[in-house]
Amino acid sequence: MRIDLNSDLGEGFGPWDMGDDAQILSIVTSANIACGGHAGDPETMFRTLSLAHDKGVSVGAHPGYADPIGFGRRVIPMSLDEITRMCAAQIGALQGVAALVGVPVAYVKPHGALANLAARDRTVADAIMAAVHRIDPNMAVLAISGTQTEQAARAAGLSVYSEIFADRGYLSSGQLVPRDQPGAMIHDAGEAAARLVSFLETGRMPVVDGDPIELAAQSICVHGDSPGALAMALEIRDRLMAQGVQIASFLGN
Amino acid sequence: MRIDLNSDLGEGFGPWDMGDDAQILSIVTSANIACGGHAGDPETMFRTLSLAHDKGVSVGAHPGYADPIGFGRRVIPMSLDEITRMCAAQIGALQGVAALVGVPVAYVKPHGALANLAARDRTVADAIMAAVHRIDPNMAVLAISGTQTEQAARAAGLSVYSEIFADRGYLSSGQLVPRDQPGAMIHDAGEAAARLVSFLETGRMPVVDGDPIELAAQSICVHGDSPGALAMALEIRDRLMAQGVQIASFLGN
Amino acid sequence: MRIDLNSDLGEGFGPWDMGDDAQILSIVTSANIACGGHAGDPETMFRTLSLAHDKGVSVGAHPGYADPIGFGRRVIPMSLDEITRMCAAQIGALQGVAALVGVPVAYVKPHGALANLAARDRTVADAIMAAVHRIDPNMAVLAISGTQTEQAARAAGLSVYSEIFADRGYLSSGQLVPRDQPGAMIHDAGEAAARLVSFLETGRMPVVDGDPIELAAQSICVHGDSPGALAMALEIRDRLMAQGVQIASFLGN
Amino acid sequence: MRIDLNSDLGEGFGPWDMGDDAQILSIVTSANIACGGHAGDPETMFRTLSLAHDKGVSVGAHPGYADPIGFGRRVIPMSLDEITRMCAAQIGALQGVAALVGVPVAYVKPHGALANLAARDRTVADAIMAAVHRIDPNMAVLAISGTQTEQAARAAGLSVYSEIFADRGYLSSGQLVPRDQPGAMIHDAGEAAARLVSFLETGRMPVVDGDPIELAAQSICVHGDSPGALAMALEIRDRLMAQGVQIASFLGN
Repeated sequence: MRIDLNSDLGEGFGPWDMGDDAQILSIVTSANIACGGHAGDPETMFRTLSLAHDKGVSVGAHPGYADPIGFGRRVIPMSLDEITRMCAAQIGALQGVAALVGVPVAYVKPHGALANLAARDRTVADAIMAAVHRIDPNMAVLAISGTQTEQAARAAGLSVYSEIFADRGYLSSGQLVPRDQPGAMIHDAGEAAARLVSFLETGRMPVVDGDPIELAAQSICVHGDSPGALAMALEIRDRLMAQGVQIASFLGN
Repeated sequence: MRIDLNSDLGEGFGPWDMGDDAQILSIVTSANIACGGHAGDPETMFRTLSLAHDKGVSVGAHPGYADPIGFGRRVIPMSLDEITRMCAAQIGALQGVAALVGVPVAYVKPHGALANLAARDRTVADAIMAAVHRIDPNMAVLAISGTQTEQAARAAGLSVYSEIFADRGYLSSGQLVPRDQPGAMIHDAGEAAARLVSFLETGRMPVVDGDPIELAAQSICVHGDSPGALAMALEIRDRLMAQGVQIASFLGN
Repeated sequence: MRIDLNSDLGEGFGPWDMGDDAQILSIVTSANIACGGHAGDPETMFRTLSLAHDKGVSVGAHPGYADPIGFGRRVIPMSLDEITRMCAAQIGALQGVAALVGVPVAYVKPHGALANLAARDRTVADAIMAAVHRIDPNMAVLAISGTQTEQAARAAGLSVYSEIFADRGYLSSGQLVPRDQPGAMIHDAGEAAARLVSFLETGRMPVVDGDPIELAAQSICVHGDSPGALAMALEIRDRLMAQGVQIASFLGN
Repeated sequence: MRIDLNSDLGEGFGPWDMGDDAQILSIVTSANIACGGHAGDPETMFRTLSLAHDKGVSVGAHPGYADPIGFGRRVIPMSLDEITRMCAAQIGALQGVAALVGVPVAYVKPHGALANLAARDRTVADAIMAAVHRIDPNMAVLAISGTQTEQAARAAGLSVYSEIFADRGYLSSGQLVPRDQPGAMIHDAGEAAARLVSFLETGRMPVVDGDPIELAAQSICVHGDSPGALAMALEIRDRLMAQGVQIASFLGN
C-alpha cells in the first residue's frame, strides 16, 4: 500500500502568509504551489519552491483565477481561450522561478473555483489541459478523482493522478457530500485515517448513502492552513504509516 | 551593412492599448514584449506574440518593475535577489504563453527604470542576468550599447547584442544626451536616418560634444507608441533600405 | 425641450487612456467618472475631475466591479453586502480626490456589468443604493430608464434621473435591442438625433417592434472612446441644439 | 496622567489577515485603519471599522504607498502632487466605508515608508496635510513626536497629536535608535511600561545616549501583529492603569 499526500502551498501574497508552509512540507510528498493567480508573488513562490526542494517534496503548479482578493474561489467569467492563456502564464511564471531553485515543475493541479468548474465542465478542463500540454507534454496532472479534469487530461495524452480528500465525506455518485449537508466534513483524524486505510486496502471508499464505492486515487489532499488542519494532516500521516502504508510522491521519486 | 530594428511591444493592460502594435510589427525585426510587470496581461501577451509570429519578428521578454501604474518607470526599492526572482517570474510567464503560440522567447531586454538602473549598476545587471542564465543559458540579451548590462551579460556567458536609439543624441562619453539638454531628441526622420547610415558605414556615431565615437550596435530601437513615432520608424526603415542596409534580426533568423 | 448629455469618463489607468476625455468634456453636461474599480487611479481621477470642473460639467461617481483587466464588464460573484462596501469605498475615493479640486460628487451611475445586473436585479440595485444613501442622501442617481435601478433609488429616497442611449435601438418592452439582433446599434448620427428630437417632442421613443413607447429620461448617454463615437456625440449635440433643445445638466446647474 | 494607545489595524488584504485585530481593539483607544494603499480592501475596512465602533475605539485613516506587495514599506517615487492625490483617494475610501458603519474618520496617521519620509521631509508632510485639510479641516493628525509631520500639520491649521513608541529606544536628538543599533528595541513589557510611566510623570523620556529628554506625546503606539506584541501591549496597558494612568483617546471621547 502506497499513497501520496498533497497540499496547497505558497498561498501567501507579499507580506501575508496563509498557513505554515514549513510545517506542512514536513508532512506531504507533493506541493501544489500557487503561481501568481489567486496567490503567490515571486518571493512567495521562491521561498516555497526552496522549502519543497529542501524537503524532497515534488512540486506542481496550482493555477487559479487571477483574483487574489477572492483567493481564486470566485468564478471569473472568461472564455476558454482566456483560461488557457491565464494558466499558461501562471505555469510559466512558476517554472521561471523554479529554474532559480533548480527544481522541476512536475505536475499541475488547478485551484479553487477553476478546479471545481473544470471538474464538471469538460470544455474548461480541456482549456486547462491545452496549456499544460503545450508547455510540456511530460508534465503530469493531479485531478480530483472521478472528474472531467481526469478525462480531459487523459484525452490530452497527459499522465494523470487522482486525489481524494482526507476530510470530506463521499456520496455513492463519487461526488463529495456538499458542505451544507450532514457528513460533509470529517473532523476526527482517527476516523479520517481509518477510512483512508480501508480505501487503500479495498480500493473502496465509504459513502454516506450506500455501500462503499470504487475510487481510483494515488494521492490524498490534506490542509495546512490552520493549526487544527496541520495536526489532522500529521495524525493521518502517522496512522497511515503505522498501518504499513508507504507515503511517497505519485511521481515515484 | 545589416541592422536589426527593435521596439517595445505588448505594453497594453486589459482593455487598454499602448500604441499600434500591428503597425510597428510590420516595421521591426525584433519585438521586446512586456511580460506582466509594467504591462502585459496573458491576453495582451498572446495577441502580441501571435502577431510577431505571423510577421516573422523575433521575440524577446521585456521584464520591468511590477508597477503597471508607474509603467515600470519608477525604481521600486528591491533587493538584488528580489530582482532576480521578479525577472524569472516574468520571463517564465511570457515563455508559458509563447508555448501556446509555438514561438521561442529568444532574448531578454530589460524595461524602463530597471533597464536604466542596470545600465549603470553592475550588481543590478548581474541580478537580471542570473534569472536569464538559470532559465535558459542560450537566451540572448539585448542591452543598451556601452552599459553595465552588456558587461554583466557577457560575464554570465550569454550572447549579447547592443542597441542604439534612432531618436536620441549621444555624448562623447557614449551616454545619451539627457532629455533636458539641447540635442537630446532627434525629431527629423531624415536626420535620424542619415546619422544611422553614417554609423553603419563608419562604425562611428555623431555626438553633440566632439568627434564621432565608436559604438558597437546590432540593433536600433524605434518606437510605435504614437502616430508620429510610427511614421518616423517607418521612414527610418525605408531610408536605411534605400541605402542598401539589410534589416534583419540580430539573431540571424 | 431640455436634456442632459452624459458620458463615462476617466476610464484610464496609470499610463493608459481610454478615449479623449478633454474632447468629450466639451460636449457633455454630466461626467460619470471611474473611481478606482474598473478603471481610474488617483491621478486619472484628479485629471478628469479638474477638466470637468474647468468645463462646468456635473460630476458623478461611476462605480464598477474592482476588475480593471475585465474593465468592469464581467460579473464578479459578490454578496450584496460586498457590493455595498465596494461601492462605498469607490464613491468615497472619488469624493476624496474631488475635495482637492473643490467639486462636489453630485450623483452616482453604476458601470458595466454591475449596472446591467442592477438593472434587472432589485437586490443588487438596493445594495448599490444603500452605499449612496449612507454616504450622502442628497446624492442623486443616474439610472438606465425603466430599470430596477430606478426603482431602488426611488425606494431609498434618492433623487433619480434616467438616461436613454443615443446609439441603441429599443424594444417595445422598453429594453434595449440585444447587440446581436438587427436594429441594436444606430450608426448614423442624423438618424440618432432625429429619434432623440422625436422623443423629446413627444415623450415617445421609436422601437423596432411596434409603436413608439413612453419613456422617462432626463439624460442621453453618449460615448467618447473612439474618434467615431466622439464625432457622433458632437453631431447629436449640434442637431439637438439646432432643433432648439437646451443641453444642460439634469441637476439644473 | 492620561494617554492614548494606538495601533495599526485592518492591515489584511482579501483572504489574508495581519495580526489579531479583535484582540488589539480590546487594548487600544485609537485605531489607525489601512485604507486600500498598503493593505485593506473594502471588506477588511468594513470589518475593522465595525469592530472599532463596537469597542468604542477612535478611528483614523492610515494611508500609505499603494504597494500591497511591499506593505507600504518601500518608497515609491512619486511627485508631491501624486502623494496628495493618493492620500485623498485612500482617506476618502475609508470615509465611504465608515459611512456604512456610522463612525467618523477622526484623524489621519501616515503609514510606513510614507510616514518615515514625511517625518524628515517637510514637503512630503505638507503634501499629506494638503489632502487632509481639503477633505476635512476638522480632521486631526497623529504624528510621530518631533517630526516634520507635526510641523506640517500645525502649519496647515490641523489639530495635531503626537505619538511615542512603547517598544523603541530613543536618542537624545529625539530620534529613534536605528534598528541595527543596541537599545533600538525594548523587548521587556515591564521595562517598556516603567519608561512610559516615568515619561508620563516627568514629561521626559529616557534615552540611550544622555539625560532624559522632553517629548510631547498624547499617544503610545503599540503593535498587535504577533502574539508576543499583543501580550506586550496588554501588559503595558495593565501596568499603566495600575499606576493610575487613564487610558483614553487623545480626541477626548
